[in-house]
Amino acid sequence: MTISYSEFIKEAHLEGFEDSEKYRAWEPKIKKYREKLVNSIPEEFKITLPTDVAELQEKGFNGVDFLYKSGVLSSKEIEITDMSASDLLGQMASSELSAEEVFKAFAHRACVAHQLTNCAAEIFYDEGLERARSLDKYLKEKGTTIGPLHGLPISLKEQMNYAKKTTHGGYVSQLTNVPEKHGITTQVLENLGAVFYVRTNQPQSLMHLDSNNNVTGATRNPYHLGLSPGGSSSGEGAIVTLGGSSIGVGTDIGGSIRGPAAFSGCHGLRPTSKRVSTSGGVSSGMGQESVLAVAGPLARTIDEIDLFMKNYLNAGKPWELDGSLVPMKWRDVPVPEPQKLTVGIMCDDGLVKPSPPIVRALKFASEKLKAAGVNVVDFKPIKTDVASDTVLKMYNCDGNEKQRQLLSASGEPLTELTKYILSQGDGSKPYSVQQNRVLNFIRDGLRTEYTEAMVKQKVDIILCPTYNNVAPRPEKIFNWSYTSLFNALDFPSLSLQTGLFQDPSIDTWDDGHKNYVFRNDLEKLECALYNPVLFKGAPIALQVATRRYFDEELVAASKLLVKLFGTK
Amino acid sequence: MTISYSEFIKEAHLEGFEDSEKYRAWEPKIKKYREKLVNSIPEEFKITLPTDVAELQEKGFNGVDFLYKSGVLSSKEIEITDMSASDLLGQMASSELSAEEVFKAFAHRACVAHQLTNCAAEIFYDEGLERARSLDKYLKEKGTTIGPLHGLPISLKEQMNYAKKTTHGGYVSQLTNVPEKHGITTQVLENLGAVFYVRTNQPQSLMHLDSNNNVTGATRNPYHLGLSPGGSSSGEGAIVTLGGSSIGVGTDIGGSIRGPAAFSGCHGLRPTSKRVSTSGGVSSGMGQESVLAVAGPLARTIDEIDLFMKNYLNAGKPWELDGSLVPMKWRDVPVPEPQKLTVGIMCDDGLVKPSPPIVRALKFASEKLKAAGVNVVDFKPIKTDVASDTVLKMYNCDGNEKQRQLLSASGEPLTELTKYILSQGDGSKPYSVQQNRVLNFIRDGLRTEYTEAMVKQKVDIILCPTYNNVAPRPEKIFNWSYTSLFNALDFPSLSLQTGLFQDPSIDTWDDGHKNYVFRNDLEKLECALYNPVLFKGAPIALQVATRRYFDEELVAASKLLVKLFGTK
Repeated sequence: MTISYSEFIKEAHLEGFEDSEKYRAWEPKIKKYREKLVNSIPEEFKITLPTDVAELQEKGFNGVDFLYKSGVLSSKEIEITDMSASDLLGQMASSELSAEEVFKAFAHRACVAHQLTNCAAEIFYDEGLERARSLDKYLKEKGTTIGPLHGLPISLKEQMNYAKKTTHGGYVSQLTNVPEKHGITTQVLENLGAVFYVRTNQPQSLMHLDSNNNVTGATRNPYHLGLSPGGSSSGEGAIVTLGGSSIGVGTDIGGSIRGPAAFSGCHGLRPTSKRVSTSGGVSSGMGQESVLAVAGPLARTIDEIDLFMKNYLNAGKPWELDGSLVPMKWRDVPVPEPQKLTVGIMCDDGLVKPSPPIVRALKFASEKLKAAGVNVVDFKPIKTDVASDTVLKMYNCDGNEKQRQLLSASGEPLTELTKYILSQGDGSKPYSVQQNRVLNFIRDGLRTEYTEAMVKQKVDIILCPTYNNVAPRPEKIFNWSYTSLFNALDFPSLSLQTGLFQDPSIDTWDDGHKNYVFRNDLEKLECALYNPVLFKGAPIALQVATRRYFDEELVAASKLLVKLFGTK
Repeated sequence: MTISYSEFIKEAHLEGFEDSEKYRAWEPKIKKYREKLVNSIPEEFKITLPTDVAELQEKGFNGVDFLYKSGVLSSKEIEITDMSASDLLGQMASSELSAEEVFKAFAHRACVAHQLTNCAAEIFYDEGLERARSLDKYLKEKGTTIGPLHGLPISLKEQMNYAKKTTHGGYVSQLTNVPEKHGITTQVLENLGAVFYVRTNQPQSLMHLDSNNNVTGATRNPYHLGLSPGGSSSGEGAIVTLGGSSIGVGTDIGGSIRGPAAFSGCHGLRPTSKRVSTSGGVSSGMGQESVLAVAGPLARTIDEIDLFMKNYLNAGKPWELDGSLVPMKWRDVPVPEPQKLTVGIMCDDGLVKPSPPIVRALKFASEKLKAAGVNVVDFKPIKTDVASDTVLKMYNCDGNEKQRQLLSASGEPLTELTKYILSQGDGSKPYSVQQNRVLNFIRDGLRTEYTEAMVKQKVDIILCPTYNNVAPRPEKIFNWSYTSLFNALDFPSLSLQTGLFQDPSIDTWDDGHKNYVFRNDLEKLECALYNPVLFKGAPIALQVATRRYFDEELVAASKLLVKLFGTK
């Protein structure tokens, strides 16, 4: 069990990335950015933690518990920020609640969440307040809301362009990047009435299932400050779980919405590509369409995910602003009757076996579904090795050229997980255009095989792990296979909470594990990382997925599942 | 006016394509293929033309006239083959007509069409007959049709995989390629009840707006045997116009459905990408998704285009067989009321000005629309130079690698138009993956600009030329800008007949032409090619287009337009 991740770093050819000389010129900018972040927390929202953060991390401090029990928020604030988005919108529309008081409660809670987890990259309280007040004024004067999301506090992954605000995407070199205009999705949400006040953290390169970067550092897990919140929509996972926003928007090219939702403790949807706009933002993937990045919502309930998608699409009509989108309205799909639903469970993708808490959750889910009359069948993984291999090659088949541009412009030091991801696929080896086309062809073949398998077996949704384990320890997550499969397939997929939490007393390896023959080195490494005592109290989520563009059916089925799990 | 196309061939680096030594081994295979084609015409369907083909070409012989007036088809055959697809399907479903007699009439007409225009690459009468008889048997035994296209004679571009039949796509090297299975679209149509009996001609490389190849040579224009039928779905343009099939299926990556429809004399729809499957076929574009190839119907009426799309999508559910498709049903969209329709006319794309017959047709269309109460506005071309430049680069940014593979495998001689297209963009210069991504990014920007312009100006459809001229002379078509614009934009676009035909006595350059200052060399070349007397009787078509995935609205508006033009 002595394998380390570094053994996985093949010939990465990472020369020309780091440059400590050049980096020195950037350090004052970083310092200034951080100071601004610290100073952006209103004085009255500052809290004192029981001990210093390092100690809390060591102890596995539960931030969610603290938030509810410490009294840092008033009961009225808790009440408002625990209301569903639908109730909030209804009460604001009828003036039972003002946008201002809703905003203030969420902004307060967001600041607490940030002080617990370092989830924010930027907080702009005054602008949020001004916006909320202008919405109240609008409603008062016109007698109608500005749009269906009138007054709703929404958090945004920092990577998304925000007009006239630094947008760095976790790259030091982009600290000087100040877009003129909002990215399309931000603009659509603003048009619908959303209130913005916080932009959230993400890892360097945007390509970790974790959160560390050289600008504002790593985010912490809400349920266990010593664990990772996941990534790359790291701050979204943390802030949404802690109720610092009603709904959050993340992006996902390999698991970046589903990972943080699963690990942090909320739900997160990776929609099919080209429904939610990713236009306007910092990333290494501009024009890369072999494996498409998507944007999508994170929320505490599936209903809120549904509400986001429906309003964003049907009222927002993003395809009128972004010509690359597919103009498909969000269809009203009823929650399926259990007896009419077939769920194919894929317990193990054949690459990396799940850890004990994940195995327990799969068993729990299977039993709950069967008890309710759902038709539960086995879904056998199909060429998951090819899918994982292909998608990893797709990420960097430009020979890491774009990442090199973005990273070497500041010469910033590479974090370990950046080095890891840049070494995957064929590392810095550039592919020819024709080789890239072959990858696309392989990918389309996989899409057809999975589609045919689901149609033939009449499987409505696939249920499987989001990752082979619960929330990883910081900088210790190497396997993307369970999430990136659905990026390769472009299947809508959703991480949902089971309501279970890791328990060291029961989530131990079974007797068979000590004689288990690992199928590959990655599995050996990932399994070695699981030590029951380290993950105490981590939320346990699973992932569901279905065929392309059946997002509505996926969300509807997810509503049934969380109901059967006893969550929401 | 001495510019020749060869001046446009930049550094094409076409070494390694041709190899006369190697090619010698392929010549017997070509001979055998051609003999088989000649022998596949049933004896009783053989016709005698008035004089030899070269003379008919010289004279501008009208094949459509000949077909109706020469008596080669019985009046009953004419009656059947001139019925709408909808009537045919209705009468076959009610057994008023048998699939066998429908098949025989179309097969006869197809054989006449082939002898006039060399439109077929393969004819398989016996299999078609057997299929038609089995459908009649099915209906008799089961009392129901096999599907909504039960008995409909459909022609297929040869490039599309056909189970157990040679599928060469115009490449000599592919004469040994015999797919095991049908391509997806062929399979879907077969599932729905279509009868196949003819596969049609296409140019070498599949990248000409013309038809010549080394396997079966060039196809001729039905209305003027001395002109080109267009391409690359060359045989489809000719056979559909001549009524040798009820509906034809072509493919289009730069104008390959719209060109042959427009030039030959029928209508043709290039749907938005990922609605009709292109999976399974010979082409140089496997895995190329910067500018996506699409498949779509050609027909003599817009109603038949509607019927094809509706049944193919709604009953065929191709997305269950091809995981790369967008599962969007065909929506029932009523024909718009003239007063509620806004048509933006783009008379000139700013690159190559239209020839006199096209100018006349634009004026005719504008007047007809205005007279009916349609809101007609100017639509100004947006960055058409960028669009044309980008799409040409996208075709061969693999450095012509895939074309080189397919062509050099036989060493076949390159036709002039193959050399021309391989020299476009940056010729054989390979792009890096990152450079390819930049092209994609530029393309997405164009999509958004056109989308925004249409939304802002409330333009429902754009009306413009399909090409700056009517049907070109063989091997003399160099400008793709009017069609490839909509491939870059991925806008659904449709060539439709105006009912007008070129007339040398009126379609002469206006007085201003002799002092006209050409905007570029391509325009100079294309204009030099227009000599009124050479194009006598060529059909005059125009092109309509609209925003992505509004195919239904485009087809509905086209129904109105042809009605106003007095065609159907």
